[in-house]
Amino acid sequence: MKKIAIDMDGVLANIYSQFHKMHLEEYGETIADEEIDGVEERQAFPGASKYVRNQGFFRTAPVIDDCQRVVEKLTGYYDIFIVSAALEFPNSLNEKLLWLEEHFPFITWKQTVFCGSKDIIRADMMIDDHFRNLDTFMGETYLFTQPHNKLADCGVHKRVSNWLEIEKLLIL
Amino acid sequence: MKKIAIDMDGVLANIYSQFHKMHLEEYGETIADEEIDGVEERQAFPGASKYVRNQGFFRTAPVIDDCQRVVEKLTGYYDIFIVSAALEFPNSLNEKLLWLEEHFPFITWKQTVFCGSKDIIRADMMIDDHFRNLDTFMGETYLFTQPHNKLADCGVHKRVSNWLEIEKLLIL
Repeated sequence: MKKIAIDMDGVLANIYSQFHKMHLEEYGETIADEEIDGVEERQAFPGASKYVRNQGFFRTAPVIDDCQRVVEKLTGYYDIFIVSAALEFPNSLNEKLLWLEEHFPFITWKQTVFCGSKDIIRADMMIDDHFRNLDTFMGETYLFTQPHNKLADCGVHKRVSNWLEIEKLLIL
Repeated sequence: MKKIAIDMDGVLANIYSQFHKMHLEEYGETIADEEIDGVEERQAFPGASKYVRNQGFFRTAPVIDDCQRVVEKLTGYYDIFIVSAALEFPNSLNEKLLWLEEHFPFITWKQTVFCGSKDIIRADMMIDDHFRNLDTFMGETYLFTQPHNKLADCGVHKRVSNWLEIEKLLIL
């Protein structure tokens, strides 16, 4: 079976929802979506670097629409690996494991990868919201739309806006 | 630069020393090296599955001879990644990070990978003591001698018995 490397933050876990919530708590104001289209996360939310270190940031992130059902379905057709560049925030490792266990109980420890750089990943496809991960990958690359990459020309990568599109592309 | 994926347990960390120590503590007897040549770890030490879950098992493992100096030297010639199948024992993640920080301070979070299966690793070379990791790897493979693999025909892999041999093969 072909292997798919699927990113966590911004692909499975709704990190923007956490940023918005914590920004509102800190500054008492909301940021409109269109204000931060094309803006890097750490510029869009001045507290972002702090928020990702908050206890619970990763553990309580909501799940992105439809991904549980579609990822489970994909496991019937592909070897699925969840690949997260989690080593930047060592405290996130346990939160991420618990989050996966709760929301993706069908994903085993054998299918989980916590790395720093994704340059070392070998698979047939990669789904990720960051160019830095896709650009060095040898295989088919899918750029998952998030505000920070929304205005960019996706170049050699195929843009996917949600999990229903991925379902259509990879299964239907 | 070419990438090398280096295993932790049995290649950098002296896991057998921990097994011997804990076996002695539990059974009050020592096991002679030649008794366990060619025997899988979990058969050689009846308590092995329990020992690896003991707090401190990974954190207090001694470092295998010469590997700190040689790995540091290798970083001048290769992109080094430390790749550990650590997800089987989630409690080991923090211990392994602290161990690396103490003994390999020159290895950054970007060079660290904690995975389940190593099927997803792409590099030019892999140094590992387990056939299951080397057999599916696409690249040069080095079997690091440990008692459990000592009697096996290493097949397509190149056998290396210590870090001085690796230094000679990859640098000198």
